[in-house]
Amino acid sequence: MNIAVVGMGIIGGSFCKSIKKHTDHYVIGINRTKSTLEKAFSDGAIDEIGDKESLKKADVVILALYPSAAVEFVEKYGAYIKKGAVVTDSAGIKSEICPKLSELSRKFGFVFVGSHPMAGKETNGYESSDDTLYEGASYIIVPCKADSDSVKLLSDLALELGFGMIKITTPEEHDRMIAYTSQLPHILACAYVLSPCCKNHKGFSAGSYKDVSRVANINAKLWSELFMENREPLIGELETLNENLLAIIDAVRDGDKNRIEELLEKAHKTKEELGE
Amino acid sequence: MNIAVVGMGIIGGSFCKSIKKHTDHYVIGINRTKSTLEKAFSDGAIDEIGDKESLKKADVVILALYPSAAVEFVEKYGAYIKKGAVVTDSAGIKSEICPKLSELSRKFGFVFVGSHPMAGKETNGYESSDDTLYEGASYIIVPCKADSDSVKLLSDLALELGFGMIKITTPEEHDRMIAYTSQLPHILACAYVLSPCCKNHKGFSAGSYKDVSRVANINAKLWSELFMENREPLIGELETLNENLLAIIDAVRDGDKNRIEELLEKAHKTKEELGE
Repeated sequence: MNIAVVGMGIIGGSFCKSIKKHTDHYVIGINRTKSTLEKAFSDGAIDEIGDKESLKKADVVILALYPSAAVEFVEKYGAYIKKGAVVTDSAGIKSEICPKLSELSRKFGFVFVGSHPMAGKETNGYESSDDTLYEGASYIIVPCKADSDSVKLLSDLALELGFGMIKITTPEEHDRMIAYTSQLPHILACAYVLSPCCKNHKGFSAGSYKDVSRVANINAKLWSELFMENREPLIGELETLNENLLAIIDAVRDGDKNRIEELLEKAHKTKEELGE
Repeated sequence: MNIAVVGMGIIGGSFCKSIKKHTDHYVIGINRTKSTLEKAFSDGAIDEIGDKESLKKADVVILALYPSAAVEFVEKYGAYIKKGAVVTDSAGIKSEICPKLSELSRKFGFVFVGSHPMAGKETNGYESSDDTLYEGASYIIVPCKADSDSVKLLSDLALELGFGMIKITTPEEHDRMIAYTSQLPHILACAYVLSPCCKNHKGFSAGSYKDVSRVANINAKLWSELFMENREPLIGELETLNENLLAIIDAVRDGDKNRIEELLEKAHKTKEELGE
């Protein structure tokens, strides 16, 4: 297949490198900044430096752009996409953009299948991309009424690239779960490092500091967009967290050791039963 | 030197193994459960299965017990400790127990130097101990008016064992910083996994879920004691966190993208400048 990857950040770059590593598909890179494409080409991450015209020959298009930019790209260049091609995004929110991309797919005659690779790093850009990023990770597919052959094509491709698990879901369930599994930890990490103590942590800190603060090294522009477009589930999860946090705070404030132990034991059991 | 390690959990066991790995000191293991001592002896982690009588020949005594148990141990067996021996604890809180242990040191004629190895795992017990646990970690020393030779002896020993950094501080500063660097992440992790979403995370989660939830696999008995004995600094840090969290929640609720981005960028800069 000819696969066009639009956007050469950590997500797009890692797709290119993984496709080249694991398959014989022909990879077309498309990106606003040409120098990044030249770097990707010289790295062997892409077979061709593409542009809108290259979309005409792509069987699969992977949009690795910010959510709103993915919609804008298709609004602008949708007419160049081959009829029947499978187009997927890789955005961290789905309810806001999947209906728009589905509508554009009907307008331009391609098939849209939403997806979200559950992998990332606390650094960004093509320089951070690598051909192992997706190994063992979960690939969430949000079919949005696409035909099952197109969903299977994308699912098979993901497994070929080394993803460890395919999760098929709706935009709503995706957004509700992502609010919890991904957005909340990012907000927690940011709130955590804003304590005045943070700058003096060295010598006093170990693994638990390191883990909870890691993703505070956040891409503020991207994540503020993700939070904005997932406000309702996110606020729900923030409120749940706040209640659970207050229950522990109150028990500590009251000096109620049994109650603290009870809450911690409940958390311990939850985590232990899940295994991970 | 003869070094007695009291308590064969992850902390004590790792001290024994590290001493045997890196030094020629003679290690005496003391523990309530004899079978653990036999295991440690057969592992070569200790040179001798000891008891209260063995304390008479120890030049250094490392108490690797729960905070209150460390005080109780010395109250009960302090008379067996050699005059002039250096005794240290390894407890995660200091203001509550250091004055008690200092007082006992004057009563029994040994030197007490508080300490806290900044290392651990989300699992416990001798089985989790290993000879690399302390490699590169910080060793916090709380001298509590001990003479400088005794502090140096302990500091030199820690560096010999592979600790990467010695931090000398007061009980109050220790407890204030530990509330932030260690206790808070444990509370956050517990509050986080108590969300009803947690049990469905698989397929929707990646590194940020994994990191923030790791230490929810908590030893509820130990940590409820640590929280109870450090209530004031901990409540202060919890309140600071709660304020920072609410600032982000409010910005999300108001749909104020600029404000969200501003707060995230502040967190990002803090984390980036610290480097870790």
